[in-house]
Amino acid sequence: MTERVVVIGADAAGMSAASQALRTAVTHGRSLEVVALERGHWTSYSACGIPYWVAGAVEGPDALVARTPAEHRANGIDVRLLTEAVRLDVDGRTVGYVDRKTGAEGTLEFDQVVIATGARPIRPDVPGVDAIGVHGVQTLDDGAALLHHLTARRTRRAVIVGGGYIGIEMAEAMVVRGLDVTLIDRAAEPMSTLDPDLGSQVHAAMEAMGIDVETGTPVEAFEVGADGAVRGVVASSGKTYPADTVVLGIGVEPATALAEAAGLPVGEFGGLRVDDHQRVPGHDCVWAAGDCVESHDRIAKTWTYTPLGTHANKQGRVLGTNLGGGDAAFPGVVRTAISKVCNLEVARTGLREADARRAGLRYVAATIESTTRAGYFPATKPITVKVIAEDPSGRLLGAQLVGREGSAKRIDGLALALWNEMTAAELSMVDLAYAPPFSPVWDPILIAARKIAEELHSRSLDPGRVGA
Amino acid sequence: MTERVVVIGADAAGMSAASQALRTAVTHGRSLEVVALERGHWTSYSACGIPYWVAGAVEGPDALVARTPAEHRANGIDVRLLTEAVRLDVDGRTVGYVDRKTGAEGTLEFDQVVIATGARPIRPDVPGVDAIGVHGVQTLDDGAALLHHLTARRTRRAVIVGGGYIGIEMAEAMVVRGLDVTLIDRAAEPMSTLDPDLGSQVHAAMEAMGIDVETGTPVEAFEVGADGAVRGVVASSGKTYPADTVVLGIGVEPATALAEAAGLPVGEFGGLRVDDHQRVPGHDCVWAAGDCVESHDRIAKTWTYTPLGTHANKQGRVLGTNLGGGDAAFPGVVRTAISKVCNLEVARTGLREADARRAGLRYVAATIESTTRAGYFPATKPITVKVIAEDPSGRLLGAQLVGREGSAKRIDGLALALWNEMTAAELSMVDLAYAPPFSPVWDPILIAARKIAEELHSRSLDPGRVGA
Repeated sequence: MTERVVVIGADAAGMSAASQALRTAVTHGRSLEVVALERGHWTSYSACGIPYWVAGAVEGPDALVARTPAEHRANGIDVRLLTEAVRLDVDGRTVGYVDRKTGAEGTLEFDQVVIATGARPIRPDVPGVDAIGVHGVQTLDDGAALLHHLTARRTRRAVIVGGGYIGIEMAEAMVVRGLDVTLIDRAAEPMSTLDPDLGSQVHAAMEAMGIDVETGTPVEAFEVGADGAVRGVVASSGKTYPADTVVLGIGVEPATALAEAAGLPVGEFGGLRVDDHQRVPGHDCVWAAGDCVESHDRIAKTWTYTPLGTHANKQGRVLGTNLGGGDAAFPGVVRTAISKVCNLEVARTGLREADARRAGLRYVAATIESTTRAGYFPATKPITVKVIAEDPSGRLLGAQLVGREGSAKRIDGLALALWNEMTAAELSMVDLAYAPPFSPVWDPILIAARKIAEELHSRSLDPGRVGA
Repeated sequence: MTERVVVIGADAAGMSAASQALRTAVTHGRSLEVVALERGHWTSYSACGIPYWVAGAVEGPDALVARTPAEHRANGIDVRLLTEAVRLDVDGRTVGYVDRKTGAEGTLEFDQVVIATGARPIRPDVPGVDAIGVHGVQTLDDGAALLHHLTARRTRRAVIVGGGYIGIEMAEAMVVRGLDVTLIDRAAEPMSTLDPDLGSQVHAAMEAMGIDVETGTPVEAFEVGADGAVRGVVASSGKTYPADTVVLGIGVEPATALAEAAGLPVGEFGGLRVDDHQRVPGHDCVWAAGDCVESHDRIAKTWTYTPLGTHANKQGRVLGTNLGGGDAAFPGVVRTAISKVCNLEVARTGLREADARRAGLRYVAATIESTTRAGYFPATKPITVKVIAEDPSGRLLGAQLVGREGSAKRIDGLALALWNEMTAAELSMVDLAYAPPFSPVWDPILIAARKIAEELHSRSLDPGRVGA
């Protein structure tokens, strides 16, 4: 008997799931028919590449596609583009859809359904947000629309709203394109995925690149011209920043309207909560993965929402393995992230100080300055590493780093240390690689771990001192 | 009461130990007097920087010194240069020494002694090895002697004997200096710290740089001119390679003659075997660290000899903490190493296939090709990752990688995975950092781990297949 699987959303999570389900089914003697419904024009693409496409640093959009609809079809997946799922009936096991080219409606029956509807950019609920020239950048279609706007009009002044990864990458892309750029952020420092003491380095690097960074500045409205196009961004201070282009970089939220309308429960971040096999609890035939689900935070031991391509790919693969008859589990996340900001490399994993406080954890933090290579080596660059550990256990809770070339991927070592619940003292003695072109003899992450281990040790000798 | 500590050898291990002992003693209310005897001219230097100094890429020798004798003296350590310890009486608690400038002899009493005598380059026991122009490169004094030779004579042809890290780095340095360079290695491929399948990439990169690489070629003798200077290197094939400069890169051996003469036992590699507090078992007053000791291999669960600056620094610190009245343990090594070879970055951790076989472990190996950045990203470079895991447990045993810029430090993630005894399947799901300028969405080390997990899984479904 062939089971029909309907996959809603044909990007990383959905198509990883579909491909892996078909592969796994073969080895388990099961027969699957997979239909994938995709509201846009593309499958399996790198949304993270959009800022580089907009900047002209990479070709697009085709180069950003990891696997085309034709390739998926050749692998036996019935991909239907411009087909939007509009109704999900879990008990009746049907999906209603609309063909966006013709407006025709239809219904598909399924045995299993995969919800991989992704995320959508948060649009501030203020006047003028729907004006021409106000763009989110979540999908290749969004990227194409923004590029069309930038090339079709004589654009000169861009305002980026929000100072997260996407906002900062887009600000840099706009500078590269020759626009005057202002970035407006309601937080005290941009890149609020870092603690503010490291975020201030990002702020300085952006200013040095000519980006006007306005922090502590919520947006009140968008000024719209008679032609319906955006003309400026009005801050809560009353000041208006002229703009012919606005990019929303406030973040994304799970696109779960369809699932919620079907009666599936969502969590505090609006995402679906699945078990570690990517199944929606209580619904044997309903699976979900990617930017529309919440994940388990291994450090805080809570739910979290971390919409990233890495998780989407892994969760999709786990989902597909289980759906195809195998057995796999998604082990959760430690919230590792990395970005390039002008000439800085920025990375984080685990909890920030604010997260640790929110989780009710007593902790110590230490920050060190070192270099990416031996201090005497040509082209050695500065790197700042901050580590946070639980007091008094020493368990590593989080780490952040900001540095120049050769810094960012050092976060992987820290992520693995957190993942394995190592203490700072343990990490400080690990056999990491050293050679002058690559590291000081004590790698910066070892120095940071050592500093925090020493701080914890001296606290233990002086128990009168109060933790943070 | 003040205890006197005599430290024999004032490089990384000895001076880390001395400094940390003094720091720790303060917090434990102990009083130490530290005397450090050093046969050479320098303290606390980066021997790993010597090839770059010879190549002219970094200044030397002063820039390679992390802490000068004057700085150590300012910290309260009585550093005596050009003073060679020649006799150790453990029971009598004395060290006999010779002042190399004056030839005067003396004796020092001690309460505790730290043996940090390091390693010395292996000199093949063949005719002519003591000719003028045949150089090892283990100390700054060695580096200075080689540079004096290269500049004082009109040198044109260098032969490097041995294709390990030092040999290859020195071969490259000689090319940079404009010499014709032949590297002679008895192994099948250079860089035998890698399996030969990856070593062949190193071989090719060296040939592409103009280095003549002769593998499977043991050295039989050095041809010496009437002036006592080397004229050529005679291989066992009978062929003679003309040379006015020879660099020995065969490896090093523990410099434990003094310790052995004192009746202290050494292990199968000739190094002292200390407990995890860096104390010589059975001798409460005798400590040792650095290139003169063997270490615990956490993967093979055996003794190993891995003379590296990272271990010397960590062991010295552990030793000093314990000597000063604190409590610290050196946790062993996973044999991580890294090197730059022409335009290649080369790294390893854990066991090679040969090591796994020798340890009697059943294993699988998998090799993958990927890129250092997103495939579509400018300046993305190739990287090859090989992973070895135990069959059927999946426990990671070793990893090697060879790639272009941005490859090498990825070994740290693998080292941490091995350190924590992760399985390949576990590693494949870890939350490592992704952004297009730094990684494909599946980092190469995740791809390698995934491939090996799949291989192990398919073996488990087909138990008739025989492991390697």
